Amino acid sequence: MKDFDLEEERIKQVVQKLGAKRVLIQVPEGLKPEAPHIAKMIEKLGVQSIISADPCYGGCDLAIAEAESLGVDLIIHYGHTKLVKYERVPTLYIEARATLKVDSTVEKALPLLKKWRKIGLATTVQHVQTLDEVRETLIRAGKTVAIGDTRRLSYPGQVVGCDYSNVISIAKDVEAFLFIGGGQFHALGVALSTSKPTIAADPFDERAFSVDAEAQKIFKQRWGCIEEAKKAKTFGVLVGMKAMQKRLDEALDIKKKLEENGKTAYLLAAKEITPEILMEFPNVDAFVNTACPRISLDDASKFKKPVLTINEALVIIDKLSWEELCKKGLLES
Amino acid sequence: MKDFDLEEERIKQVVQKLGAKRVLIQVPEGLKPEAPHIAKMIEKLGVQSIISADPCYGGCDLAIAEAESLGVDLIIHYGHTKLVKYERVPTLYIEARATLKVDSTVEKALPLLKKWRKIGLATTVQHVQTLDEVRETLIRAGKTVAIGDTRRLSYPGQVVGCDYSNVISIAKDVEAFLFIGGGQFHALGVALSTSKPTIAADPFDERAFSVDAEAQKIFKQRWGCIEEAKKAKTFGVLVGMKAMQKRLDEALDIKKKLEENGKTAYLLAAKEITPEILMEFPNVDAFVNTACPRISLDDASKFKKPVLTINEALVIIDKLSWEELCKKGLLES
Repeated sequence: MKDFDLEEERIKQVVQKLGAKRVLIQVPEGLKPEAPHIAKMIEKLGVQSIISADPCYGGCDLAIAEAESLGVDLIIHYGHTKLVKYERVPTLYIEARATLKVDSTVEKALPLLKKWRKIGLATTVQHVQTLDEVRETLIRAGKTVAIGDTRRLSYPGQVVGCDYSNVISIAKDVEAFLFIGGGQFHALGVALSTSKPTIAADPFDERAFSVDAEAQKIFKQRWGCIEEAKKAKTFGVLVGMKAMQKRLDEALDIKKKLEENGKTAYLLAAKEITPEILMEFPNVDAFVNTACPRISLDDASKFKKPVLTINEALVIIDKLSWEELCKKGLLES
Repeated sequence: MKDFDLEEERIKQVVQKLGAKRVLIQVPEGLKPEAPHIAKMIEKLGVQSIISADPCYGGCDLAIAEAESLGVDLIIHYGHTKLVKYERVPTLYIEARATLKVDSTVEKALPLLKKWRKIGLATTVQHVQTLDEVRETLIRAGKTVAIGDTRRLSYPGQVVGCDYSNVISIAKDVEAFLFIGGGQFHALGVALSTSKPTIAADPFDERAFSVDAEAQKIFKQRWGCIEEAKKAKTFGVLVGMKAMQKRLDEALDIKKKLEENGKTAYLLAAKEITPEILMEFPNVDAFVNTACPRISLDDASKFKKPVLTINEALVIIDKLSWEELCKKGLLES
């Protein structure tokens, strides 16, 4: 795939150094079509390779249980940085750095940033290597630039689907954010976490655009979901079964709080939280999702009933105000 | 649920006897709406209860990994009999026996059986207690009755989604089968496994019907899939990640055989095999499914590419003829 560095040589070296006999290859959706190519490259070393075909949306979803079940010696995980603290199965993270230039797209973003002088930068791991260059471009355009680094992620300025600590840490010092990367998913996360104007510069499509209208739409949707869930009597508290999405203690805690407030609540464990599986529980009026918060925010229109984040559930029972929630950011918990 | 015996008293006794602190409740799709009721009943004993919300289609899909991950002391598994040999987590199987009468529905089936004298009986675990009564009814109607028992399942005459050994064992001795149970899924399995005329008596809908037209449609579809897959150059060999669906050795074996026949083949591991996950591999021409064979047969029209069973793949590479496959039954492997 010409747009990403698949680091084939490094994979070969690690596989051979470890003397691996069987490896599991896990890639996010956008890179899945490349997985067979990587598998064959590894098989040529005399090593069995199995591709994980289940959906994978983050480092939180490391295929540890699958790797153990299949008896592999090494997981090769593409597209995300390390989130798990303790490795039960040796794991090689391949960041899949984008190889394309971002300068012309950043130039297109400049007119959209003209109202603001203090700019915060954010990106995914695929483009962290471009941030110095982007900073220079912005400074030449008369801006001041801030890049957050809370050390919670692997790189300054990096964001992942559920962790915007790097942008939140500098939000008070900037007037707007510029996000470098493909699509609107991560840029939207910046806007929902900081309530700041956010411009996305997408080097794949070579276009720049504001995500503020979409963010406003989601803020309104969340308010609507919370209002609807206030009428609910019976709650399903969802426990995520992906490696780093399981928060059983938080689920037990919110269940207890709901019950203390006169609600009925059940714990529901699921690997993939989809509209279909929730429809199997017709007597549940609303759900609280303790797994990936993006499921609540990004899939809201697909669900027939409110699927709240933990903080949104706290609003229902008056433990947090809507204003405090917006200040924390919709994705914090 | 008035149609099934949920065995609440037995659950209470086992939970208390084991001194369980936390249990996982796993129910098949049709019974999912009852799960919250069971969870509350258990919670009243002072025991934490978590409902598995993931789809569950059989005893092959026992939530062992989830139970271990959630630290539960007991799995309560509804609707299926035991398939796993060694229990890593104590498991209580509740068969969810149907409480409704089947006699009037069997009476409705009699006219559909008039062409045949020797009848084989089959049912799911929900209705095994009715087989003696159904046998008597058939004998009174002038039939001879056979009920197979290969001891592979828990009861004589029992079938499950992928195991029709009990009907296959008596197929040569009968002219047609009568299946007692809801829907057409299991009745269809009988027809696809034996190539015998099969009448379903569904006591929930109180109706009797032949599944032979649908079985013929599936036989034709399978032939079409095999013909299409003969043109394929690149195969994805699917390895199921559910407890009893993982057949890695068979997957490695069929991969090797495909490669020996000049094909390219990859191993793809997945928990839920859906059209969506297969579409992520545009360069794969056809799939061989070593997980639940019903995915290949029942979901064929949803898949964009052929998804063969292991035996169907053997037809592709001339290790088995279509006639031999039909004789074995489409669900045998």
